[in-house]
Amino acid sequence: MSTQIKDLVERLGGQLIGDDTVEVIGIAPLDEASGSHITFLSNPKLRKQAAQTRAAALILSPADHEAMGADYQGARVVTDNPYAYFARTAQYFASLQAIPAPPGIHPSAVVDPSAKVAPDASIGPLAVIEADAEIGAGAVIGAHSFIGRGAKVGAGTLFHARVTFHAGCIIGARGILHSGAVIGADGFGFANERGAWIKIPQTGRVVIGDDVEIGANTTVDRGALADTVIGNGVKLDNLIMIAHNCEIGDHTAMAGCAGVAGSAKIGKYCTVGGAAMIIGHSTIADRVHVSGGTFVSRSISEPGNYTAIFPMAKNADWEKTAVIVRNLPAMREKIRELEKTIKSLSEKSE
Amino acid sequence: MSTQIKDLVERLGGQLIGDDTVEVIGIAPLDEASGSHITFLSNPKLRKQAAQTRAAALILSPADHEAMGADYQGARVVTDNPYAYFARTAQYFASLQAIPAPPGIHPSAVVDPSAKVAPDASIGPLAVIEADAEIGAGAVIGAHSFIGRGAKVGAGTLFHARVTFHAGCIIGARGILHSGAVIGADGFGFANERGAWIKIPQTGRVVIGDDVEIGANTTVDRGALADTVIGNGVKLDNLIMIAHNCEIGDHTAMAGCAGVAGSAKIGKYCTVGGAAMIIGHSTIADRVHVSGGTFVSRSISEPGNYTAIFPMAKNADWEKTAVIVRNLPAMREKIRELEKTIKSLSEKSE
Amino acid sequence: MSTQIKDLVERLGGQLIGDDTVEVIGIAPLDEASGSHITFLSNPKLRKQAAQTRAAALILSPADHEAMGADYQGARVVTDNPYAYFARTAQYFASLQAIPAPPGIHPSAVVDPSAKVAPDASIGPLAVIEADAEIGAGAVIGAHSFIGRGAKVGAGTLFHARVTFHAGCIIGARGILHSGAVIGADGFGFANERGAWIKIPQTGRVVIGDDVEIGANTTVDRGALADTVIGNGVKLDNLIMIAHNCEIGDHTAMAGCAGVAGSAKIGKYCTVGGAAMIIGHSTIADRVHVSGGTFVSRSISEPGNYTAIFPMAKNADWEKTAVIVRNLPAMREKIRELEKTIKSLSEKSE
Repeated sequence: MSTQIKDLVERLGGQLIGDDTVEVIGIAPLDEASGSHITFLSNPKLRKQAAQTRAAALILSPADHEAMGADYQGARVVTDNPYAYFARTAQYFASLQAIPAPPGIHPSAVVDPSAKVAPDASIGPLAVIEADAEIGAGAVIGAHSFIGRGAKVGAGTLFHARVTFHAGCIIGARGILHSGAVIGADGFGFANERGAWIKIPQTGRVVIGDDVEIGANTTVDRGALADTVIGNGVKLDNLIMIAHNCEIGDHTAMAGCAGVAGSAKIGKYCTVGGAAMIIGHSTIADRVHVSGGTFVSRSISEPGNYTAIFPMAKNADWEKTAVIVRNLPAMREKIRELEKTIKSLSEKSE
Repeated sequence: MSTQIKDLVERLGGQLIGDDTVEVIGIAPLDEASGSHITFLSNPKLRKQAAQTRAAALILSPADHEAMGADYQGARVVTDNPYAYFARTAQYFASLQAIPAPPGIHPSAVVDPSAKVAPDASIGPLAVIEADAEIGAGAVIGAHSFIGRGAKVGAGTLFHARVTFHAGCIIGARGILHSGAVIGADGFGFANERGAWIKIPQTGRVVIGDDVEIGANTTVDRGALADTVIGNGVKLDNLIMIAHNCEIGDHTAMAGCAGVAGSAKIGKYCTVGGAAMIIGHSTIADRVHVSGGTFVSRSISEPGNYTAIFPMAKNADWEKTAVIVRNLPAMREKIRELEKTIKSLSEKSE
Repeated sequence: MSTQIKDLVERLGGQLIGDDTVEVIGIAPLDEASGSHITFLSNPKLRKQAAQTRAAALILSPADHEAMGADYQGARVVTDNPYAYFARTAQYFASLQAIPAPPGIHPSAVVDPSAKVAPDASIGPLAVIEADAEIGAGAVIGAHSFIGRGAKVGAGTLFHARVTFHAGCIIGARGILHSGAVIGADGFGFANERGAWIKIPQTGRVVIGDDVEIGANTTVDRGALADTVIGNGVKLDNLIMIAHNCEIGDHTAMAGCAGVAGSAKIGKYCTVGGAAMIIGHSTIADRVHVSGGTFVSRSISEPGNYTAIFPMAKNADWEKTAVIVRNLPAMREKIRELEKTIKSLSEKSE
């Protein structure tokens, strides 16, 4: 199934230059595109490669368009953000091939009669939907998913197979939850009494905004009293842990295996690298970027990039370095002694 | 539904001072409590706040009670551990609102005829219970949960939706397992033969004590030959990995994303911070507290607090520091040379 | 059920010395074996223990056989790799006790009519198999497992309860996937547009070779355009994250909680310790061994052992050390000043 380039641009915007009747069947990288593909240039360093692409059409920025001149002869789509345009173009072609989930409730699903399921929502095989839950228009609840009592799933939100969404939790529109995600398990809250742990009931909810994506086997715990809050446009990768009462600001993205301990407040437009951990009760400003593997041991009030990684080395070298690190207090003492000696020598020599 | 304060104290203990007919509908923090709440003071620094709370009743320690005198005029519950009392009070009010799981086996569940399910246990929709499994009195097995052949679930234990509890594993009374937890998957055991890995069958079990809570998507592997053992009162947060043949001592608590490698023995009353990892075949004493993000690379024989975290910095500062760390052996060499030079200078100057 | 030692050796190879009619019922460690067990010596340091074992038969290397002489009087199985022989012997005895999964489709499973399920494959209760999926001869799909549209599961591969295997993904023969594993969720790919994230469709697959084992709650994401590839004989422990477009070379093994960021290429015969993380777009050579807890922040071109761990200490000591680490640039500056001073003193004294 091919698409005329002018139809694509009509749908996605941008300025079309050249033959607007060119037909394309998909998008591919510069070096892999054939004459029936559209491609994109998002990095000026690749202009030479772009000049040689066989693609029928090229998405590029005004600056690259000017710089390349006649180096590329196919149809051009000029846009301020070629990479975002690539993403939308890829979405468009993916949607042409997508097999839509059938509307209605699969006969094997177990849906409480009091649940409100929009007529065009799709409830997959062996899903369980408890009393008073609400599933919005066009939402898709995958096979083996579980929607707890009174939970609400917004319009157009997609739960892949085997998502667990506990009682009372809420997610807005156009979200995507991946398999194995657990939203609304109890937060980890206990009082200690002579060494033993007394459970503090976790009666808050998880409240998730619009356009949120949550990865496979990621867990977001419900709040203790107040709610755990995930802002609009937040993207969480796989195997992430968001503890109770956290707040994650709009459009913040976190990579796989990251974790946020209880009651931390993460700002907007932050990025958190893979396996980074953020300490509990901290406040992280907007536009903070945490490197992968970093343990954030305190609040961060200024935007910027933050890192805490021990430098990797061959094991034998690391062992030497580690011994010295362990003995740094002694080394500092030694330096202080040298300073004193030198000072006294200097005085003598004057 | 409100509760007279004297009924609450009769149930939970403590010394009641003031009007014992006050009625409360729930527990709330000092600053959020209304006149129909009970609240609690667990930190002496908050006495001023406690004096101003609108709560109808206040849980506090004997020392705070004495110090506050007439600063607070409502009903007072004096107890040695106000925070634990708060937890129990919150449990009480949560239980009033809890919707009990219906006893009996949901018609959509697949239960082997040889399984022994207590009459008042609740087996949720689409659960699977294999041959010879035993489900104790009052236990609740959530939707989509799986109980393997011959596994035993103790009285009053609650499995939320989608818990996997493999063949032969055992859990005691009053446990709570959260969604996605996998108990009794194979341990990671292989013999190497010319580069390839030959699987060592994992024929041990997971044996879990009473009053254990295990978080969402946490995994506890079965032992290779002997069992993996989780003591009484242990609390494991989400996304934790307990490898085969580990032993976790009674009342030890571990925060999210922590991990314990194979055959490690963790003592009693320990705490392990988020994302901390404990090396295999280690022995950790009782009452050891490991900071979050710490890699425990050896056994620990003394109680105390242990840490191993690279200090976080702005990325540019970290880069400078990391280069120096990498070059610490050269720096030490330099210091030794300076020492020699100084020594020879000192000798000359004498 | 006992087995004559000669039958065992006929099946597994090795040289049998001594009474070949001895009968054994299982394998046990040197110190736990009874007279009806076979045991094994894989570490020369344990020869004394081997001499005292009560086992009816002993697996050992030619060197140990020669060194021990008549110290052990039972039947001996001499083989180059006693530990691998132990693994195979344990597999043999485990297979005698294994309860085979019943062939055929459980009546509660939801299998699309277009799926091709081998007649002797076993589809467990409440499993879901979508259109055009293929399940090979002798494969076992556990309860609550999900096989997406067009996915292919090779002959003899075992999915434990509750595995998710998404559309189009492929696994070869004799694999083992543990509960909660999610194969083929979307990779984490977005374009940024004025702070918001635009999803890049993930249209690649996960392609897994033969003899692969994947642990509980581990996730392997599908590729963005190309595939994510897991080689033959790869072993992944629990709670591991393999991001989109990674390639994991044959016979590489990774321990629990490890992670590999997008587009990393890991070589063959590597090992990755628990909670180690490998940065995206890196290339790791064959036979690289990464210590647990190590953040691999760059490509590695040479085989060997690599480490990056901050040394653990009592918390008070760590705090002192951490302050110095943070101030290392100032310390280096101080040393440079001392050098200058000393140089000038030396010149004066000449």
